[in-house]
Amino acid sequence: MATQRILDFIATRRPNGPCLVVDLDVVEDNFQAFRKALPDSSIYYAVKANPAPEILRLLASLGSSFDCASVAEIEMAMDAGATADRVSFGNTIKKERDVAAAHALGVSLFAVDCVEEVEKVARAAPGARVFCRVLTDGAGAEWPLSRKFGCVPAMAVDVLVHAQRLGLAATGVSFHVGSQQCDTEAWDAALADAAKVFADLAEQGITLTLVNMGGGFPTRYLKDVPTAQAYGRSIFAALRRHFGNRLPETIIEPGRGMVGDAGVIKAEVVLVSRKSAADENRWVYLDIGKFGGLAETMDEAIRYPITTPRDGDRMEPCVLAGPTCDSADVLYEKKPYPLPISLTIGDEVLIENTGAYTTTYSAVAFNGFEPLRSYVI
Amino acid sequence: MATQRILDFIATRRPNGPCLVVDLDVVEDNFQAFRKALPDSSIYYAVKANPAPEILRLLASLGSSFDCASVAEIEMAMDAGATADRVSFGNTIKKERDVAAAHALGVSLFAVDCVEEVEKVARAAPGARVFCRVLTDGAGAEWPLSRKFGCVPAMAVDVLVHAQRLGLAATGVSFHVGSQQCDTEAWDAALADAAKVFADLAEQGITLTLVNMGGGFPTRYLKDVPTAQAYGRSIFAALRRHFGNRLPETIIEPGRGMVGDAGVIKAEVVLVSRKSAADENRWVYLDIGKFGGLAETMDEAIRYPITTPRDGDRMEPCVLAGPTCDSADVLYEKKPYPLPISLTIGDEVLIENTGAYTTTYSAVAFNGFEPLRSYVI
Repeated sequence: MATQRILDFIATRRPNGPCLVVDLDVVEDNFQAFRKALPDSSIYYAVKANPAPEILRLLASLGSSFDCASVAEIEMAMDAGATADRVSFGNTIKKERDVAAAHALGVSLFAVDCVEEVEKVARAAPGARVFCRVLTDGAGAEWPLSRKFGCVPAMAVDVLVHAQRLGLAATGVSFHVGSQQCDTEAWDAALADAAKVFADLAEQGITLTLVNMGGGFPTRYLKDVPTAQAYGRSIFAALRRHFGNRLPETIIEPGRGMVGDAGVIKAEVVLVSRKSAADENRWVYLDIGKFGGLAETMDEAIRYPITTPRDGDRMEPCVLAGPTCDSADVLYEKKPYPLPISLTIGDEVLIENTGAYTTTYSAVAFNGFEPLRSYVI
Repeated sequence: MATQRILDFIATRRPNGPCLVVDLDVVEDNFQAFRKALPDSSIYYAVKANPAPEILRLLASLGSSFDCASVAEIEMAMDAGATADRVSFGNTIKKERDVAAAHALGVSLFAVDCVEEVEKVARAAPGARVFCRVLTDGAGAEWPLSRKFGCVPAMAVDVLVHAQRLGLAATGVSFHVGSQQCDTEAWDAALADAAKVFADLAEQGITLTLVNMGGGFPTRYLKDVPTAQAYGRSIFAALRRHFGNRLPETIIEPGRGMVGDAGVIKAEVVLVSRKSAADENRWVYLDIGKFGGLAETMDEAIRYPITTPRDGDRMEPCVLAGPTCDSADVLYEKKPYPLPISLTIGDEVLIENTGAYTTTYSAVAFNGFEPLRSYVI
């Protein structure tokens, strides 16, 4: 949301061109809300959501750990003050030389989802702890969850047995219920699967201790979402349901839920037009689009709140598009976006709750446009 | 395609990580083929397809003009040796201050598709020549063409009359038949529309002189595509059909057709796995994906040829995915991609005909991965 600090920054600094402004106070509030909602879980911030150094430094100072997708992200987390024991290499798809680089940095917790990956970790990070990601169906999530990560629970058992056999520490299970997951109950089925893997491995003499419950915690876009507290209650109940009194160590990996509502993109209306005199919808073109940081509008998946200086005037559904010469650079067309009919060229609009998955997604130079700038305040 | 020069470069230089290698000899051949196929048309290279300075310098030296989407692209074209009279500001969505910047650089040819844009150009580039883009349906194109650019022909008449009234030179009409357009006849209907706009304006005493026939010329992916010569014959016949003996000045804007087959991406297999013992398809993960330069695999639109060191072995359909922690970073899944069953972790693969719409589309740092590197040889 556009906090007063963000509004003041934009009003005072008048940054030129589209940019993201992130309010660290909101990040801190979100961190404390997660800590309160799930006091027994370790928080591993999903660095990929927004790796701005100021955000990483704040979270490191608050005691957060870090879920990293690459060696570069591990280095960023450690540069921000995290020690290697507070880093998880959470990508299940790693080059062996990157596993070795992480190992050399002291990282000792790795995600795997197949025996092939276990073998890389065993060679390049001998003795490390590994957790195996299991597939979930992602029902209730707004960002599509494919079968890309994880394996079926039965295979996870084999993967972890293999890990133990190769001298790794088979430590636990992870899953992801799908990004922007609005159903607080979504963790239940995955925790049932995790408990089953724990039981199957116990039968083979291997004691797992860790459940990495992933991210998926939503940020508020146009619709209200449950509070961190509601997720905490539901998840804790599911843990008790499936693990009884022997609760495992748990990890959560909020990304969007940590920084999404901490940031606002300031953009400018470049053009408002119609395609014909009889055109039903106006077209509104902004100076930011799908390739400038709003990649999550792909298939109109994420629908951001937008505020304009004309709010309060009569609204009309518009097709909203970006500034590039790519015909795929359209944000909302299948379901047009209501905007004030008085909205005009040069107006400044705020695209809210864009703190996650925007800056780093931005194209490096498509159409000659520079990547999304960001200010963390 | 992987020319011997490209293969030698990769074998000798052993670049680390995924990278694009472009062979300038192929770009030159493509330029000459367009010049021969449409000898009376001016070639405006679509800079957005690949703005590598070496490519721009080569094309400038060969006499090409440049279709630019932004002030940055105009500056790149001029840095490469193009004079301002060989530059078209082809984006219909321009900030007025960018029009002014282009005007200050000497650019005098601008695309418009509505009266609102005409007014910006009239204020910021007084006296400039404008052409109005008309909508076409894009049938036959492999990359989706939305209604984002252009207006209906009846509105184009009003737009150009308005331009003339504001002191601009109403110069002509443009259209785009859709990227990777495999139907050589696709220009016919659009040229009919253009001729109608010419006739309607003639009735109002305005003589148009220019038809910008856009790009759309394909590159060969998995299927054969018609030759530049075939497009040239078909387009020339359509021009004669609709303009008779009074042929207008014409422009073509090849981008993909100029550089697509000049480049090859070298990538590495990071992981090959299955999701369950009974999984029908293996998953093959590369070190490049949708956010690392292969954005045109969106909705599996563009299907690149891929060669591997195991070609000749038995093939099996695979799901092909990128290396990021984003579940949307899957290249081909709905229609799995046949790859050798012996393909294994560490193998180097060549993703062919990736010279266009790859480097600049690449995310700036998603998941901490650096943007696609490129070598132009």
